[in-house]
Amino acid sequence: MDIFAHMQQALHDLKTAGNYRVFAELERQCSAFPRATVHRADGDTGEVTVWCSNDYLGMGQNPKVTGRMTEIIAKCGAGAGGTRNISGTNHYHVQLEKELADLHGKEAALIFTSGYVSNWAALGTLLSRIPGIIVYSDALNHASMIEGIRHSGCERRVFRHNDYQHLRKLMAADDPKLPKMVAFESVYSMDGDIAPIKEICDVADEFGAITYIDEVHAVGMYGPRGGGVAEREGLMDRITVIEGTLGKAYGCMGGYITGSEVLVDFVRSFASGFIFTTALPPALAAGATEAIRHLKESQVERARHQATVAKVRQALDARGIPHMHNPSHIVPVMVGNAAKCKWISDILLDQFGIYVQPINYPTVPVGTERLRITPTPLHSDADIKHLADALSSLWSQCALARKVA
Amino acid sequence: MDIFAHMQQALHDLKTAGNYRVFAELERQCSAFPRATVHRADGDTGEVTVWCSNDYLGMGQNPKVTGRMTEIIAKCGAGAGGTRNISGTNHYHVQLEKELADLHGKEAALIFTSGYVSNWAALGTLLSRIPGIIVYSDALNHASMIEGIRHSGCERRVFRHNDYQHLRKLMAADDPKLPKMVAFESVYSMDGDIAPIKEICDVADEFGAITYIDEVHAVGMYGPRGGGVAEREGLMDRITVIEGTLGKAYGCMGGYITGSEVLVDFVRSFASGFIFTTALPPALAAGATEAIRHLKESQVERARHQATVAKVRQALDARGIPHMHNPSHIVPVMVGNAAKCKWISDILLDQFGIYVQPINYPTVPVGTERLRITPTPLHSDADIKHLADALSSLWSQCALARKVA
Repeated sequence: MDIFAHMQQALHDLKTAGNYRVFAELERQCSAFPRATVHRADGDTGEVTVWCSNDYLGMGQNPKVTGRMTEIIAKCGAGAGGTRNISGTNHYHVQLEKELADLHGKEAALIFTSGYVSNWAALGTLLSRIPGIIVYSDALNHASMIEGIRHSGCERRVFRHNDYQHLRKLMAADDPKLPKMVAFESVYSMDGDIAPIKEICDVADEFGAITYIDEVHAVGMYGPRGGGVAEREGLMDRITVIEGTLGKAYGCMGGYITGSEVLVDFVRSFASGFIFTTALPPALAAGATEAIRHLKESQVERARHQATVAKVRQALDARGIPHMHNPSHIVPVMVGNAAKCKWISDILLDQFGIYVQPINYPTVPVGTERLRITPTPLHSDADIKHLADALSSLWSQCALARKVA
Repeated sequence: MDIFAHMQQALHDLKTAGNYRVFAELERQCSAFPRATVHRADGDTGEVTVWCSNDYLGMGQNPKVTGRMTEIIAKCGAGAGGTRNISGTNHYHVQLEKELADLHGKEAALIFTSGYVSNWAALGTLLSRIPGIIVYSDALNHASMIEGIRHSGCERRVFRHNDYQHLRKLMAADDPKLPKMVAFESVYSMDGDIAPIKEICDVADEFGAITYIDEVHAVGMYGPRGGGVAEREGLMDRITVIEGTLGKAYGCMGGYITGSEVLVDFVRSFASGFIFTTALPPALAAGATEAIRHLKESQVERARHQATVAKVRQALDARGIPHMHNPSHIVPVMVGNAAKCKWISDILLDQFGIYVQPINYPTVPVGTERLRITPTPLHSDADIKHLADALSSLWSQCALARKVA
């Protein structure tokens, strides 16, 4: 077989289906976020307002964070220079892990090179090394969790999204003597809905299961110290492993787990994806530590964030632009057609200076293609009006249905 | 079953076997590398010379690299703010990918959050999505390659380390019509030996296989432009995929693959570990680009590096300290006993101000425990003498065999 012809064909099929990804080349503008320079294919540049960043609170430009990174680059240099075991553990990694353990009220924390790797490595290790364990996984769990579960080769059951009754039914059908884990997220990225954490923990307790929650879309943004939805709801102590990211609300890069001393030490000691990889740069660890510390104290960003989200929703409602209602900061504007979704996104970028990436299959199911809008505390009222007006105009041009208020 | 008791027992077993990892907490000293501050468990600090860093050339403190990082933090902020597809592609990622493609004489390149992820995601994607493909994998391939191959679920054959005759035998036994890939490394991390790249490519050609080489311990250090061993030997065009890292000789963090446009686009479009993860911080991408550009031009670091390696070997030989001979920059000093290896490392750190992490099972086979010494261009003659004298003294105390010259 011709390997290259096969790959060419697969790419051709993606393009035909409208699912081929074209990356927008941006240059973020520190201190002017959410503004960015866009570099176009023809070499031209332009200015855009980013409406789909996961730097949810703009912490990536917070002077405490950037200042600390600059300071630690001057002090320690660029990279860590090794794996955590072989010369790569830096003082600032250790500090960050202490900060994270404190954030979630846990005994210990462990950082990974990304949130993806933290899920993949932690779930892969725990589930492969606890003999007989069964995992109960929410149907909409992130790719990194699914890969970790697959990797472990353990028995798995998928419960309907956020459906703790279904979870109970599945758990009741299994041998009560076997060890069990329930794995789920707090805020789901694409729909922005939030898990019934308490009810899931109740079911887990009923069957003696440990619990694993992914709070990557919540840490920094929910809870009085930014500990996530579980903190806000007073449930952190009911979760065995809280996983999070340093790459979204904390504005940096990297992922982590927190939990008991023994569990964290177990993952540290056995996870291939933790052991055999170069550690995060010390300056990134130090910058993330500053971001966490800042958001443990400051309520301003969280309050403004929620206010902007509410304003965006109102502006869309006023113009009849349909968006998925949910209790989080994620505003999915529903288009329901891959080609139209891409077209709207292209016109927003080219004619309105607005950047929102279209979200198509396989990230979301066919027929639910959307623009995933993520307001930040730094979007102004004028930005919101401009976005809503632009969408309204394109809604007419595309002959898309409006929602009657 | 008691999950936590199980984990506790597993950790206890590790400790009993002498394989429990204790991380040295360092604080790298930018502009004084390989010097670092060590933070001890009791809160005390001390000064050490690091002899086991993978920042092989000290580029992590090169002012071009750190200066560029600082500049781009001021310009673009801390993190990328999203996945490559959703607002996370920055101008400096695109520049880095062009630089890497040029480095290896390939059409295209793709960066990942780490070298581990680049191997895992690229091999996992290629091998799972080319129907019927068989991979021939060197017996000593890195954990990240093995995980990628396992992940793909494809047919695999393991050939004896560096043994291209064995490779030929295995390939000859398989259906000639099935697509094939040979996956191997250039410099092997723990023994420091180098693959017979030409012979392996000859065998691959004979059976129409594509080739995948991991050059993470070679890029920046070998070849007139730092393209790795394949560049030095004029073989880059015979390799289908060249994989490398930004976290060792380039002093930063991140991994990459280079290859033809269609292959890179294929991995870009289908690799879960590439798609669903936050992109590298723009400043890291920009810093790595500077490091690559510098080492494309400058021969000073490579020449000094090789000279230091030769001096270290001479100093060890003069004192009868046994080390594995190999044609690379890695100097494995053989101890052959886990407890003694750890003891020597502890005494070097506490009494001699020398930091070399002990390498025990499972990273190397039982009975081949070692101190893996990595000289850099920045170790002085006095540093080398101090290291060799300290080892010589400990060799006597430990009653370890010397090698007769």
